[in-house]
Amino acid sequence: MSLIGLATDFGDSVYVGEMKAVILARAPAARVVDLFHSVSPQCVLEGAFLLSKSWPFFPEGSILVAVVDPGVGSDRRILAVRAHRRTFLAPDNGLLSFISKSDVEDMRVVENRSFFLPHVSATFHGRDIFAPVAGALAKGTPLAKLGRRTSAPVRLSDLSPVRRAGGLEGKIVHVDRFGNLVTNLSTRHAPRAIVAGRRRFRSAVRTYSDAPEGRPVILKGSFDTWEIVVKNGSAAHFLKLPIGSPVRQELS
Amino acid sequence: MSLIGLATDFGDSVYVGEMKAVILARAPAARVVDLFHSVSPQCVLEGAFLLSKSWPFFPEGSILVAVVDPGVGSDRRILAVRAHRRTFLAPDNGLLSFISKSDVEDMRVVENRSFFLPHVSATFHGRDIFAPVAGALAKGTPLAKLGRRTSAPVRLSDLSPVRRAGGLEGKIVHVDRFGNLVTNLSTRHAPRAIVAGRRRFRSAVRTYSDAPEGRPVILKGSFDTWEIVVKNGSAAHFLKLPIGSPVRQELS
Amino acid sequence: MSLIGLATDFGDSVYVGEMKAVILARAPAARVVDLFHSVSPQCVLEGAFLLSKSWPFFPEGSILVAVVDPGVGSDRRILAVRAHRRTFLAPDNGLLSFISKSDVEDMRVVENRSFFLPHVSATFHGRDIFAPVAGALAKGTPLAKLGRRTSAPVRLSDLSPVRRAGGLEGKIVHVDRFGNLVTNLSTRHAPRAIVAGRRRFRSAVRTYSDAPEGRPVILKGSFDTWEIVVKNGSAAHFLKLPIGSPVRQELS
Repeated sequence: MSLIGLATDFGDSVYVGEMKAVILARAPAARVVDLFHSVSPQCVLEGAFLLSKSWPFFPEGSILVAVVDPGVGSDRRILAVRAHRRTFLAPDNGLLSFISKSDVEDMRVVENRSFFLPHVSATFHGRDIFAPVAGALAKGTPLAKLGRRTSAPVRLSDLSPVRRAGGLEGKIVHVDRFGNLVTNLSTRHAPRAIVAGRRRFRSAVRTYSDAPEGRPVILKGSFDTWEIVVKNGSAAHFLKLPIGSPVRQELS
Repeated sequence: MSLIGLATDFGDSVYVGEMKAVILARAPAARVVDLFHSVSPQCVLEGAFLLSKSWPFFPEGSILVAVVDPGVGSDRRILAVRAHRRTFLAPDNGLLSFISKSDVEDMRVVENRSFFLPHVSATFHGRDIFAPVAGALAKGTPLAKLGRRTSAPVRLSDLSPVRRAGGLEGKIVHVDRFGNLVTNLSTRHAPRAIVAGRRRFRSAVRTYSDAPEGRPVILKGSFDTWEIVVKNGSAAHFLKLPIGSPVRQELS
Repeated sequence: MSLIGLATDFGDSVYVGEMKAVILARAPAARVVDLFHSVSPQCVLEGAFLLSKSWPFFPEGSILVAVVDPGVGSDRRILAVRAHRRTFLAPDNGLLSFISKSDVEDMRVVENRSFFLPHVSATFHGRDIFAPVAGALAKGTPLAKLGRRTSAPVRLSDLSPVRRAGGLEGKIVHVDRFGNLVTNLSTRHAPRAIVAGRRRFRSAVRTYSDAPEGRPVILKGSFDTWEIVVKNGSAAHFLKLPIGSPVRQELS
């Protein structure tokens, strides 16, 4: 039976509990794992980044359900995508930006109401559509039954950095519970410097314990991107750079 | 094996972890699901509301364990109730107000200490009584073994709105992680207006994305009650109305 | 199949979700339970206290994985310990202080990289080492395969109170979600008084509901240690004593 990962901006809330109840009522043997719920309310960029980095740790055959959904109840579509030997279920708002066209084995618009809860609210599709559809998928329902094939998902323009003269323009895409500021600048590129706000970081430390006390530094984070951190402190508190803030990587 | 839903005000804490360990030590095959833990500390009204709205999503045969328990260690009773083809376990403080007398198939005072942990603290019955009893129920222990039959649970007077001249008097009963102010006023009744604090809401939007930016509006929430929301913001922050605040629904 | 308890300072975050995905990719039948994730960032003392008090509620054969790890990526060791008929996996930084030498059945340095993820980051050993090793243990890998035997774990000097003239010197070791200040002073010793900050507590209440409104008092907490609590309020907010603050127990 499939492993189902839940990724939302619902925080610690009854909304996640209701989704799990609906999934398990449909697929009693499914295993449901909380992937994350701490995305800033309605921040699709942060959700897309975290999902793009964490899905590979799920085994093949897993179902990843992502609900960061400010457009709930509007005419935004819901997508079910088979890619990378896993199934992704998400609103078509950029959450699945990391899936490139060539990765897609099958992509469907979720529209077959026979898989939804009998009463669908206008404000909580996580419970009324995503959860019962995930339960159906876990029980082996073929993707093709969910709706018509489609091929053009919405993509976020700012999930990946863009090349500018002499470097890369990226963003802060996640602030973790330690206050580390996570960028989308890949650590594959050794930077000459990283510029965030009015600060310029020239040399990186390797671990948190190598960092000086009370001063922001950069390191290679566990998402394989550059992070700004303060040892025994919060870089978020120190630098006051919210998610979406630009960061620049000067390449040598 | 039964599905067990846990509903508490323990937040993200070791208290929930200890309850799960005790349940699974007694009933290794049980499935435990977090229903909610984010109820405001000791707020029975909020817990009762959320439980009343979320239990129907659990499949028949589930066990719902609710621990919002400011009276822990006092002489308040603990109830085990069979109703709606599910089993509910909760302190007798109003959490089960939504169960009407005619719904009850069996109701017991939980008092048979042979199902408790050997050492029962005065401050954490969730771990020492509720969890091991839930484990016993999951393994098939008949309700009748837990204690004597009873029939008069404590009921909260303010969980449901009351009728007043020209309308209904309700309350804010939940503030969710998005800052939405959830009332107990049913959306079955179309209001002429809803009054909260010094504001009067006349027309409702259908979805969050239909709402104007930065101004509180009402919409039909996923609990089938009216909610006050601010798009891309927090109605709780905006209106500063805590749980328990009165709201009035003028009926047309 | 083993029960695996996760105890971290990761809060509500994707880090816990990634750990679970890795564990379940390796050991699909394992049961993973969140023990706690709310430890103050990098507070080994709080983590060690909570773990020492909560592991006994897990059934024999369980695997307890504790990751409060400010030294991640440095040369601090990782330990796998068989003791109390359970297996403990933690950085060697004092988290396992509660395991005395005579309790140890086997203790290993975790160093066999064949059980790690192929790529080990310098900043997230929870996902890259602890999780896959826990998965291997859950599937029955013998402790001896993880690394060489060792016998001298780091111990925290302040996890247990120390005897001073006329009493015991302890600490605040945990602040729970209700704002209760949990000490490491055992309730086996009836105190003449407990002194915390500039306050002196002479008599204890038995339950939260016995406490007066709005005034801090002490009671026997569910960890079997003295707690300072404020009924319907937060002792942490009232007294402003952070974790690590000294408390003194005068013995009669």
